[in-house]
Amino acid sequence: MDLKTLAERVRAETSLPFTERDAQRILSAVLTSEDIWRIIDLSDVPVMALCTALREMEKASWLEFAKDRIRLTQAGRDLVKQAGIAPARELRCGRCGGRGVELGPVAEMAERFAKIAAGRPEAIQDYDQGYVTEESTLYRIAFMWSRGDLAGKEILVLGDDDLVSLAAALTGAPKRVVMLDIDERLVEFIREVARSEGLQVEALRHDLREPLPEELLGAFDTFFCDPTESLRGFLAFAGRGISSLRGPGCAGYMGLTRREASLAKWRAIQRELLARGAVLTDLRDDFHDYVNWPYIETMRSWQHLPVRRVPGREEPWYRSALIRIELVEPPKVANERLEGDIFTDPEAATT
Amino acid sequence: MDLKTLAERVRAETSLPFTERDAQRILSAVLTSEDIWRIIDLSDVPVMALCTALREMEKASWLEFAKDRIRLTQAGRDLVKQAGIAPARELRCGRCGGRGVELGPVAEMAERFAKIAAGRPEAIQDYDQGYVTEESTLYRIAFMWSRGDLAGKEILVLGDDDLVSLAAALTGAPKRVVMLDIDERLVEFIREVARSEGLQVEALRHDLREPLPEELLGAFDTFFCDPTESLRGFLAFAGRGISSLRGPGCAGYMGLTRREASLAKWRAIQRELLARGAVLTDLRDDFHDYVNWPYIETMRSWQHLPVRRVPGREEPWYRSALIRIELVEPPKVANERLEGDIFTDPEAATT
Repeated sequence: MDLKTLAERVRAETSLPFTERDAQRILSAVLTSEDIWRIIDLSDVPVMALCTALREMEKASWLEFAKDRIRLTQAGRDLVKQAGIAPARELRCGRCGGRGVELGPVAEMAERFAKIAAGRPEAIQDYDQGYVTEESTLYRIAFMWSRGDLAGKEILVLGDDDLVSLAAALTGAPKRVVMLDIDERLVEFIREVARSEGLQVEALRHDLREPLPEELLGAFDTFFCDPTESLRGFLAFAGRGISSLRGPGCAGYMGLTRREASLAKWRAIQRELLARGAVLTDLRDDFHDYVNWPYIETMRSWQHLPVRRVPGREEPWYRSALIRIELVEPPKVANERLEGDIFTDPEAATT
Repeated sequence: MDLKTLAERVRAETSLPFTERDAQRILSAVLTSEDIWRIIDLSDVPVMALCTALREMEKASWLEFAKDRIRLTQAGRDLVKQAGIAPARELRCGRCGGRGVELGPVAEMAERFAKIAAGRPEAIQDYDQGYVTEESTLYRIAFMWSRGDLAGKEILVLGDDDLVSLAAALTGAPKRVVMLDIDERLVEFIREVARSEGLQVEALRHDLREPLPEELLGAFDTFFCDPTESLRGFLAFAGRGISSLRGPGCAGYMGLTRREASLAKWRAIQRELLARGAVLTDLRDDFHDYVNWPYIETMRSWQHLPVRRVPGREEPWYRSALIRIELVEPPKVANERLEGDIFTDPEAATT
């Protein structure tokens, strides 16, 4: 058994993209940690393919599973040495958490945001929810500010369990903030906070499978969206964002993971974003850390994990990249209704 | 005169891409600094188009030029206020310089690298040279390490006035390091240092307009290239890098600026990289700071600047993004000879 054969087996068994390099990434992660969540985090291989690969590596006697730990065997150590595989190293900046930005003026409202967020509705599986840490939301706002997409701008948030609309409004910098969400609890919460805190946020209940309301089309400078990660779902939600923009020079922000999306899926997404008239101006991986959601033991990938341990609430393993696009040409997106299941695909791990 | 008309004029006069948003970015920069180099740096608008835009803004009485300073007039202040244009803010992390990574083990060789770099050949205009700060090179190596592209890997550097090959070899982590450069001075320098310092670097003189030598095709895990920024030149040099990779899972790094490349050019580059079988996994703007080269007063854009001041050597205004790609499919690049001028295009500012 070698890395090439292992990668072929994983592809054959799962019908998912999986390369020799993915196998290397997993072994690099195992060299750094024995813990399943750290291995998932460090390896940057989609969870569903990773689970199968770990089992195949155990069958090949490269790994052994001991309770909730994963360890290299002597055969595994020999393979790693011979293949020149080095331990995974994050080298994440200790100050900005790898994001590259300072909070700057956003730091002034951090305490107020924390108080507000304490009363937020809990994430539920029905809507594929799961929110990022408050720190991640604040850094996201700072990043938007640094790119000139916040101050004086009209901003649309499509799906807002991260409370981006409130954080943006708390800075006092945007000209207008509108949020859409399918979840009545969130819409109510944001309306209530806006009222009691005197913030200018328009909160509307809207199912993104439906076309955008006419008055939101071509009406914004900036959109933010953290889409579901099926290929069709991601492109649909990002497309709604793009169609809300005025035109060239307007910007969009999206979150995308390596946990539920292979690089083959990333490439398909990027090709489509470019075809729709946009360019990628920033792509910062591991920008967002997620708070572990309460339905971890019923998420799709749980049963597939070779060893199981419920992670602590603030023990991040699910992280996502922040992608900024800017329109170079007028947006090319149809404002059509989407039929059928847009939430699942073979790489989906959390729904 | 409004922003839209101004953008139309700049496009008509230069035949370059230029949006209303570009005009806003320039005014945001002028709100933050009166200095031409800071304005270039902050605005992220290609220098050639920016020079024309500044002159048009002066004609429109929005700006006034006073010696080497650029200031908003009262009419300019009124316009900025009415358009809701906010001052540019960088919010760059003070620890990592906005790069997001720690130097980690790379810090150990920083002093040795500085001693070596002190003897480097000076940048010359003939080869469109201009090197990044030593710090930028070290952070680049740390970033490659964090992405698993350094330790145990075979690395090709295509064009190496930044001394990436030496910095990589100094870590002792790579399996093999090869550098190519057209400049005999650099090849000799790197050979000499490798010999005296006992570093494993193969240095070869090669003109990247020529096909890659057969033995370098499909032979590497990682390439690094900081190409000339004409569209044709960039794609040609990046293509050489891609054709040097073994296959899916192998990675390439490139530098790209907003100083000599519009977002329209960025988009054309990204579309082509994706078409060649790659995906973008990281795109960190302003990762690289350049040391000002000695030929600043003979570079193409100098005569176009509306106000002139020779910047200090370590007063960075020319910065570039670090782009990481990874192959998802076998590379699709022909190994052909390139004829004609590949260095200039209408956005070229430094050659």
